[in-house]
Amino acid sequence: MSPQVEMNFKEYFEDRQKQIDNALRKTLPPVNTFPEQLHEVIHYSLFAGGKRLRPVLALASCEAVGGVTEKCLPFAGAVELIHTYSLIHDDLPSMDNDDYRRGRLTAHKKFGEANAILAGDALLTEAFYMLSSIGKSEKEKALGCQIIQELSFAAGSRGMVGGQALDLALQGRKEVTPEMLERLHQHKTGALISVSVRIGALIGEAEDRQIKALDAYGQKVGLAFQITDDILDIEGTQAELGKSVGKDKTAHKITFPDVIGLDGSKKLQKELVGQALDALAIFDNQADPLRALGRYCIERKK
Amino acid sequence: MSPQVEMNFKEYFEDRQKQIDNALRKTLPPVNTFPEQLHEVIHYSLFAGGKRLRPVLALASCEAVGGVTEKCLPFAGAVELIHTYSLIHDDLPSMDNDDYRRGRLTAHKKFGEANAILAGDALLTEAFYMLSSIGKSEKEKALGCQIIQELSFAAGSRGMVGGQALDLALQGRKEVTPEMLERLHQHKTGALISVSVRIGALIGEAEDRQIKALDAYGQKVGLAFQITDDILDIEGTQAELGKSVGKDKTAHKITFPDVIGLDGSKKLQKELVGQALDALAIFDNQADPLRALGRYCIERKK
Repeated sequence: MSPQVEMNFKEYFEDRQKQIDNALRKTLPPVNTFPEQLHEVIHYSLFAGGKRLRPVLALASCEAVGGVTEKCLPFAGAVELIHTYSLIHDDLPSMDNDDYRRGRLTAHKKFGEANAILAGDALLTEAFYMLSSIGKSEKEKALGCQIIQELSFAAGSRGMVGGQALDLALQGRKEVTPEMLERLHQHKTGALISVSVRIGALIGEAEDRQIKALDAYGQKVGLAFQITDDILDIEGTQAELGKSVGKDKTAHKITFPDVIGLDGSKKLQKELVGQALDALAIFDNQADPLRALGRYCIERKK
Repeated sequence: MSPQVEMNFKEYFEDRQKQIDNALRKTLPPVNTFPEQLHEVIHYSLFAGGKRLRPVLALASCEAVGGVTEKCLPFAGAVELIHTYSLIHDDLPSMDNDDYRRGRLTAHKKFGEANAILAGDALLTEAFYMLSSIGKSEKEKALGCQIIQELSFAAGSRGMVGGQALDLALQGRKEVTPEMLERLHQHKTGALISVSVRIGALIGEAEDRQIKALDAYGQKVGLAFQITDDILDIEGTQAELGKSVGKDKTAHKITFPDVIGLDGSKKLQKELVGQALDALAIFDNQADPLRALGRYCIERKK
C-alpha cells in the first residue's frame, strides 16, 4: 500500500471499529445487569481492543455490493460476539492455555475458569438473541433467520468448533499434510471469516454472481489470515501481538511453517491474497475497502 | 396418581421420549460426520438416557392448546440440545466437578475436558442451526426467529447461564435467603423449563390468556422441579439417580433444604405443583399430560 492509501485505510478501519463498538455497547446487556459478575466478564472480554476484523469485513462486503452498511451493523456485531466467545474458550487451560490476549490477562486468568466458560457460553447465546431481535416485519425476521442459519453452521461442529477440536487432536502429530492443515483452518478460522463476508453480501441484497465472488474472496482471505498468524507466532514480538509468542511450538501445534516452511508460507500467503483480489475483479471501487482488508490480512503486525 | 393413570402417563411419557429421540437422530449431524471425534462426544452426551422433560413439556403444552405436536418436535429437540450442553458444562471440573451423569461417565471424564467444552459449544450452536432451518415460508421463518429469541434469552446471561454463575458465586455463602435461592433457580433451571412450555404454546398458536396461564404453570413447575432435585440429593440413591448423591453438601451448594429445611422444602414443592395445576384450570382434558407432568416433577425418583 502507498502511504496515502495506507493512511486512508487506517482511518476507514478505525471508523468502522468505532461504529461496531458503539453498536455492541448499545445492544449488549449493560455491565450492571444481574448477575453483575458474569456481565463484567463479558464486557472485559468483548471490549479488550480486538481488531473487529470479522465485523469490518461484513460491513465492507455490504458496501461492495452497494448495501446500506448501517443495516448490517447489528449482524456484524453478533459475529464479533461469537469470535470473542471462541477466543475465551480457546484460551482455557484445557485448550491452548494462554495467559495473555490483546495485552491483558485472559478471562480465565482474571476471573477463574468457571466464569470464563460461562461468559463464553453467554456471548455465544447472546449473539443469537441479538440476531433474532433485529427487524420487525416478517420479511426482516426471515432474513434474520437465514443469517442465523449461515452463522450457526459456520460456528458449529461442522465449522469453527470442529476446527478447534481438530487442532487439538492434531497437536504433536508428525504426519500432517498441507491438505490436512488447510482443512483444519478452513474450519477453525476460515468458516467464520467467510461467513462474515457472506452476511454483508446478504444484507446488501447481493446478486448470485456477487455472492459467488465474495465467497471465493472470503475463503482465500480466511486462509491467508491464519498463515499470517502462524508466521507472526515466529517473527512477531509479545509487545506487538499482546499475546505470548512461540506458543505454537511449545504447545506442539502444527503450523504452516512446520509443514511447508517459512518461505513456503510467505509465498502461499501472497498467492492467496492475489487470488482474493482477483475474485473482486467484477466490483468497482466500492470494493476498495475489501481489497485493502485483503492486503491487511497479510501485512498486519498483530 | 392412581395406578391406572400412572400407567397411562408412563406410556405417554415413553412414547414422547421416543418421538423426540427420533427427531433428534434425524436432524443432528450423524456420528460419522467430520470431525468424527467431536460428533462422537455430542452423540454420547445427547443419547445417554436423559428424561427429555423439557421437550416433552413443549409437546404437552402444544397439545394443551390444540396444536399439532409434530410441528413442535424440531423446536422441542433444540431445547434438549441446549439442556444437554448445559449439563456437560456444569459437570466440568471447574464447575460442579461431577464424574457420573445418568449412570455413565460424564463427557469430560470419558473424552477429556477440551472435548467436553467443545461438544457443549457445538450443541448450543447446533440448537440455533436446527431452529433456523425449520420451515420454508417467510411466515414459518419469522416464527422460527421468534422462538430463537425466546430461547436464547432464557438460556443466556439473563437466564440459565446467569443462574449457573450465581450458583457458583453463592457456594459456601451463609447469608442466603429463600428469595435469593428462588431467584437463582428461576434463572438456572426455571428459565429453560418455562420457555419450553411457552414454545409449545407458540407453535400451537395459543391465545394470550392461554399463554399467560401456561407461563404461570411453567414458572411453578420449574421451581418445584429444582426443589425435588435438592431433596433427591439428600434422600435418593446413586443407583436410582445415576449420579453422585450428597454432592450438594460436599460442594457447599446452597439448597432449599439448607435454607427452609427438608419439611419446608417438601411443603413448598407441593404448594408449587398445586398452583401449577390451578393455573391449568382454563384448559380441558387436552391439558391432562401437562397436569401429569406437573405431578411427575415432584414424584419422580430420579
